[in-house]
Amino acid sequence: MADRSARPGGRSSRVLTAIYTSVGELVGEGADKLSFPVIAERAGVNPTTLYRRWPDVHALLEEVAVAALTRDGETVPDTGSLEQDLIEWANIIARDISRPERARYLRAMVSARVELVESCPVTERRREQAAEMVRRAGDRGERTPTVQQILDHVVAPLYYNVIFALPVDPDRAPRLVRDVLAMVR
Amino acid sequence: MADRSARPGGRSSRVLTAIYTSVGELVGEGADKLSFPVIAERAGVNPTTLYRRWPDVHALLEEVAVAALTRDGETVPDTGSLEQDLIEWANIIARDISRPERARYLRAMVSARVELVESCPVTERRREQAAEMVRRAGDRGERTPTVQQILDHVVAPLYYNVIFALPVDPDRAPRLVRDVLAMVR
Repeated sequence: MADRSARPGGRSSRVLTAIYTSVGELVGEGADKLSFPVIAERAGVNPTTLYRRWPDVHALLEEVAVAALTRDGETVPDTGSLEQDLIEWANIIARDISRPERARYLRAMVSARVELVESCPVTERRREQAAEMVRRAGDRGERTPTVQQILDHVVAPLYYNVIFALPVDPDRAPRLVRDVLAMVR
Repeated sequence: MADRSARPGGRSSRVLTAIYTSVGELVGEGADKLSFPVIAERAGVNPTTLYRRWPDVHALLEEVAVAALTRDGETVPDTGSLEQDLIEWANIIARDISRPERARYLRAMVSARVELVESCPVTERRREQAAEMVRRAGDRGERTPTVQQILDHVVAPLYYNVIFALPVDPDRAPRLVRDVLAMVR
């Protein structure tokens, strides 16, 4: 992962944004063979910047894919009810991952990972968001499913649609949320 | 899809098996650019056989991936209890999709699908299997989740692990089954 502390503002932030955007453009154009020189040229930076920051092009691709599949800085809904929070959150995920370029990022991610990984930044980001909503609901005295249940039964089925390129119908997110809440009723 | 009626026994079955196996080998070897001539050479068949049967190499790749991700002819467990049936079935899926070559097939599948599809043979195969277990449980008078709930809450979370290359712990399948059954209790 790139050093996130270097991101807000300043030159290194602008460089990183240019690199991410260029990878996104190239992936979007269906570029098959991405290399550091090709990305550097598009981003208008020196290739050594890339060689220094990432061990190989797959690592960079995966990092961009993770960012695209989670949207850093997303705020978590806070409506006063876990059911409403989860429905809004699931709708955001559904809308977000239904965009056509998501399949390309997902492909980039699958192809970067041939060996098992211990944890995945996409999952960890979703886990933090779910934990925040569950904690707030617990504070209000609501019965809640576990964070893992929310990942398994709301997040995973939504990503399933993207992998298999199945359309997401508008009722899908609320239905998954009602299902996971029915587990603890 | 290839004509399945031509598969059991006979010359066309042997040819198809050779083609499938060759694609599997080439994908397994990490071949990046599969083409009909390359596959035909490995399978020892005439390239025209491939050009006649599939519109393009992606269609063939996807067909092999579907076969690899579902295992045609799998029998569905019949233990006399839906919970046990689902646990055995989920364990088979978990074991099957944890094999390292699955990620490669999944990648082949994701890359073959850039546009949304109306239905996916992997999902449809799992749907038929789930429907069979649910029907039998209904006949025994058991309360059952819907077939769609089994797909969303047992199958999808298992495939999620494959996409993101996360290991499947041995308790995962039974836990997902207990969750989906808790929805109807």
